[in-house]
Amino acid sequence: MSEQSFEEKLNAKVAGIEEILKEFLPAEEGYQKTLLEAMNYSVLAGGKRLRPMMMAEVYGMLGGTGKAIRYFCAAQEMIHTYSLVHDDLPAMDNDEYRRGRKTTHAVYGEAMAILAGDGLLNYAYEVAARSFETGEDPAAIGKALQVLTKKAGIYGMVGGQSADVEAEKRELDLDEPKLMFIHENKTAALIQSSLMVGAILAGAGDETVSKLEQCGYDIGIAFQIQDDILDVTGNEAELGKPVGSDEKNHKLTYVTAHGLEDSAAEVERLSKEAVSIIRELDLPDPFLEDLVVSLIHRTK
Amino acid sequence: MSEQSFEEKLNAKVAGIEEILKEFLPAEEGYQKTLLEAMNYSVLAGGKRLRPMMMAEVYGMLGGTGKAIRYFCAAQEMIHTYSLVHDDLPAMDNDEYRRGRKTTHAVYGEAMAILAGDGLLNYAYEVAARSFETGEDPAAIGKALQVLTKKAGIYGMVGGQSADVEAEKRELDLDEPKLMFIHENKTAALIQSSLMVGAILAGAGDETVSKLEQCGYDIGIAFQIQDDILDVTGNEAELGKPVGSDEKNHKLTYVTAHGLEDSAAEVERLSKEAVSIIRELDLPDPFLEDLVVSLIHRTK
Repeated sequence: MSEQSFEEKLNAKVAGIEEILKEFLPAEEGYQKTLLEAMNYSVLAGGKRLRPMMMAEVYGMLGGTGKAIRYFCAAQEMIHTYSLVHDDLPAMDNDEYRRGRKTTHAVYGEAMAILAGDGLLNYAYEVAARSFETGEDPAAIGKALQVLTKKAGIYGMVGGQSADVEAEKRELDLDEPKLMFIHENKTAALIQSSLMVGAILAGAGDETVSKLEQCGYDIGIAFQIQDDILDVTGNEAELGKPVGSDEKNHKLTYVTAHGLEDSAAEVERLSKEAVSIIRELDLPDPFLEDLVVSLIHRTK
Repeated sequence: MSEQSFEEKLNAKVAGIEEILKEFLPAEEGYQKTLLEAMNYSVLAGGKRLRPMMMAEVYGMLGGTGKAIRYFCAAQEMIHTYSLVHDDLPAMDNDEYRRGRKTTHAVYGEAMAILAGDGLLNYAYEVAARSFETGEDPAAIGKALQVLTKKAGIYGMVGGQSADVEAEKRELDLDEPKLMFIHENKTAALIQSSLMVGAILAGAGDETVSKLEQCGYDIGIAFQIQDDILDVTGNEAELGKPVGSDEKNHKLTYVTAHGLEDSAAEVERLSKEAVSIIRELDLPDPFLEDLVVSLIHRTK
């Protein structure tokens, strides 16, 4: 498969996810109009849509043909987006720009950005809960909800984020288990739930779901280390955000701890492990594998 | 029934709810320990536990005998608590004290308070989603989740909160529909979902759920107006928070618009309407009715 045809597929899939998002995003009306505008501004700021894309891909590749998956794809991207909105706040990373656009608080103010994040997180679960109306297997939807909520929460993304905030503020010396805890929870957890929810809703068994949890771990850690690499080697205009912030902020990352070369090798190793799990699943289409491999070579 | 025996019942029920909360609150361990401490500090700061109490009361009075209700009671109080944590933030109301104790950000810092709120909101739905493991009717649990999420979100509490923030910042002249939108969503919505979820999980029909939605509206509006009255007439030491802040902040409230007398009369009217709905349900115990009536006379 040529690089170009992967890119074409990727663009079509991004467009497909954005269609789903637009289907579920709230109409900008009513007395809470500004809130809804701030939410939609945040979600429609672009981005790779990797998480819902992986979720939809696993679902389709494992034979899923229902509608509930669409609710969960929208929910997952809203969860991811709320985390960025709150992460950018003055009390957190204090970022004015993301993907070349003003961050939510820079446009709507801090109070509205806090509420837009809260609104997105809550609406994610509201949309996911609405999927019961599809009439599809409520036990599978219930199980998918358990995974989605757990991986996004205190034993997942929020837990990782809190440890990261503390690590930054205290300027801790490198602590390898803590670093891996942060990467696993802050970044890998949502990749894991994307793959797992796709499989659960497609009716896959526990063994497959468990393998995909490991695969998501590998992809997530690889993705995060690549992100840290780009903070050193990336092009500011291409990335749409300032580079060098990790070193400036004395931020504990895999790269500041292990250096660029070892970090790049670890990305390679993890991605190969993830690919081998995907190959075991014997999916009818190589897109997911290609997507994972492309993460190694991304420059933005 | 004497006032004293109502107080005894109330205290026992508060203790019962706090037992449920302690059952579900996270153990303070792991690299995210500070986050979990901040969450537990926020939830265990006291409070009337009105929402889960009403939920459990309706459930029991309508004949419910299962376990899933406990998950939803804990979830509802976590949702209520997260809203207070974020509401108190410097970018929002900037309150240093609540119920006589330092607010979450005053103790743990702003970043951790934002994350504690996020953690509580997410954990609420994680706990609610775990209720599928009870083996109770998944369709009822799914329906309860839909109500819980909707009333807490952009078409409920968060929506009301955002309109309130805008009303404060712009110092708008009184706009009656906007004021009622704020009260209905910021305050009544969670009372509504408490009553509705209790009924849904107990297996009540749509008509009962719908009546309880109206009842929750009445109670919520009455409760909010009473809160605004106490901001003028309350005792600071008894309330455990500063009084007079609404007028100082030019905040649009029912009391600053209509005056104390008309506000008190409206509380009375709404409570009577709520009581008449409760009486129609022919519950075997007068506690819920007594609880609603007691809201009229509360001084803290």
